[in-house]
Amino acid sequence: MNDKLRVGITHGDTNGIGYETILRLLADERIADIATIIIYGSAKAAAFYRKALELAPVQLNRIDSAPDARDGAFNIINVVGEDLRIEPGTASAEAGAAALAALDAAVADLRAGAIDALVTCPIDKHTIQSETFAFPGHTEYLEASLTDADTPDTERHALMILATDTLRVALATAHLPIAKVPEALTQELIADKLARFDRSLRRDFGVDHPRIAVLALNPHAGESGLLGDEEEKIIAPAIAAARADGIQAFGPYAADGFFGAGHHRHFDGVLAMYHDQGLAPFKTLAMDNGVNFTAGLPAVRTSPDHGTGYDIAGKGMASEASLRSALYMAVDVVRCRARYDGARRRPLRRQNYDKGRNGDPTLDLSADS
Amino acid sequence: MNDKLRVGITHGDTNGIGYETILRLLADERIADIATIIIYGSAKAAAFYRKALELAPVQLNRIDSAPDARDGAFNIINVVGEDLRIEPGTASAEAGAAALAALDAAVADLRAGAIDALVTCPIDKHTIQSETFAFPGHTEYLEASLTDADTPDTERHALMILATDTLRVALATAHLPIAKVPEALTQELIADKLARFDRSLRRDFGVDHPRIAVLALNPHAGESGLLGDEEEKIIAPAIAAARADGIQAFGPYAADGFFGAGHHRHFDGVLAMYHDQGLAPFKTLAMDNGVNFTAGLPAVRTSPDHGTGYDIAGKGMASEASLRSALYMAVDVVRCRARYDGARRRPLRRQNYDKGRNGDPTLDLSADS
Repeated sequence: MNDKLRVGITHGDTNGIGYETILRLLADERIADIATIIIYGSAKAAAFYRKALELAPVQLNRIDSAPDARDGAFNIINVVGEDLRIEPGTASAEAGAAALAALDAAVADLRAGAIDALVTCPIDKHTIQSETFAFPGHTEYLEASLTDADTPDTERHALMILATDTLRVALATAHLPIAKVPEALTQELIADKLARFDRSLRRDFGVDHPRIAVLALNPHAGESGLLGDEEEKIIAPAIAAARADGIQAFGPYAADGFFGAGHHRHFDGVLAMYHDQGLAPFKTLAMDNGVNFTAGLPAVRTSPDHGTGYDIAGKGMASEASLRSALYMAVDVVRCRARYDGARRRPLRRQNYDKGRNGDPTLDLSADS
Repeated sequence: MNDKLRVGITHGDTNGIGYETILRLLADERIADIATIIIYGSAKAAAFYRKALELAPVQLNRIDSAPDARDGAFNIINVVGEDLRIEPGTASAEAGAAALAALDAAVADLRAGAIDALVTCPIDKHTIQSETFAFPGHTEYLEASLTDADTPDTERHALMILATDTLRVALATAHLPIAKVPEALTQELIADKLARFDRSLRRDFGVDHPRIAVLALNPHAGESGLLGDEEEKIIAPAIAAARADGIQAFGPYAADGFFGAGHHRHFDGVLAMYHDQGLAPFKTLAMDNGVNFTAGLPAVRTSPDHGTGYDIAGKGMASEASLRSALYMAVDVVRCRARYDGARRRPLRRQNYDKGRNGDPTLDLSADS
């Protein structure tokens, strides 16, 4: 079973619902058949939540570093000391530091190829801020941490994609105040996001000729300029430029009725102009199964699409559904990428891969990570 | 049947789906039991669409002015000449002028009390622009047309509410480019919208002590200032001010997860900060039954929550469901208002009204309109 993928899971904010979702997920032993799990966290915190919430026992194999992980098991690396205080539902600097310690350790292993993918539990973007973490969120931190001068351009800029099995929404801008969104939207930015989204749909999701819908910025798609001119001056030209490059991009579509009318079902992906424009309809449609996938970087990272859940932390009310979906998607994307890259690296064998997804060719993952 | 309400319906853009939805609605004769209908439109256009789409015949009683309307019947007032060209799906100045003619005639009758409520079919906000119509939409036009120096302050400012039987979303700002939203959001504006929303929920929807959720402007509700400070500086103080005035306002809540988590079910109304923030989740949840209600003005106006539908105009694909809901809501709101105002005008009888909504006291609607 040496070809089993190794997936790291960071515990996130230790006062949030991270541990509850992890423990509920790992209560199903079949997860071990899907991947070798390495939790970057605190055995003490895991024990605390298991007892407090009266959850099923989970066998966690304590290890010091990722190469020690037992295949097909649930492993845990302690990234914080035994004196960590757990205060469910409370924002604290200590919990923020614990979240950062997990992230730092996991990203180092991801860079080194010691894990194949990373699933992150939610952080409190306020308490995690520190000298080494001055980012609005995971996505931006990973973009800075996983790339360097040698990274090819196609893998240097993160693209936030919210995904279920049937719906994929990418964000042209992510963690920006609304007041800064219009100035951030340039023709170059949107064309660039379209190119990266197109590449991710092909390489990460296995869609051969993806069709991408682009949402408008303004109400009624600007109503031909009456309600804003970004559609005519920026978004439409960006779509035209992308199409000239062979990308099947369409729009811009008025955002208010797009999802309600079910238009998303006609596309492989939807590019939203800003965070809430994409996430609010996505979460309304995706219910508990939404996953946040960071595309466009050298390594694969997914996360559940919810936050720390301070309001329900420690109460036994959290669902592990989104974390489970995040784990499945991380595994799917790693395999999809390997297949895509493998097919292109050995062109003579390509036709074997294009026949369908049933065949599972031997993957040389170490060479891909 | 002299107490039957008179409801005007404007035909909207004559190249859109307006007539198809009107004819499908009136194909059900029971509509005449609910209200006396007066269409502000064109008998020729109605005949054109009926034939072209092979719709069921509808008996339309041609009249010259609203007072001539036959009670419990479907009446039509011609507001455009016989030479009107119908070009389904085409934006044209002629169709825009026809839409405006209907609106002008209907609003004059609404002001004069010749009709009790107005239901508007969708206009093309571009082609309707003229010397007398320089507004971003119906809402703003009605605000200017239905108020004057004598209008009490509580009825001077329109509030756009999207409603179904179970969900009501109001907009703090409506037809504004995104770039202008942040500067438009002041503490005074939000507190004012909350007061008007609270009043409408009580007076128009019969909710005794409405609970209102307020959405945030920025991603993650500004993440305590990291992603924008409007929540802390403007929205939260506005909520506090409203609460000091006895309004049950809560928030601000991050908009991305609010509807997906079902939080709207705990509130009687949701105040969104801008157009798409409210409408995108609303339309996703409301499906075909959403209604746009203009609160805060002296008269009642509703409309379906869709646009002209140029892409499906003349193809027989339009649904009348939202128009039907708009008609029902217009009638409900007029009756609710009359009951609310009547109860307060005759305080000694008030307890009879507060017992419940089953009793249907005799309404002197002529005095209310």
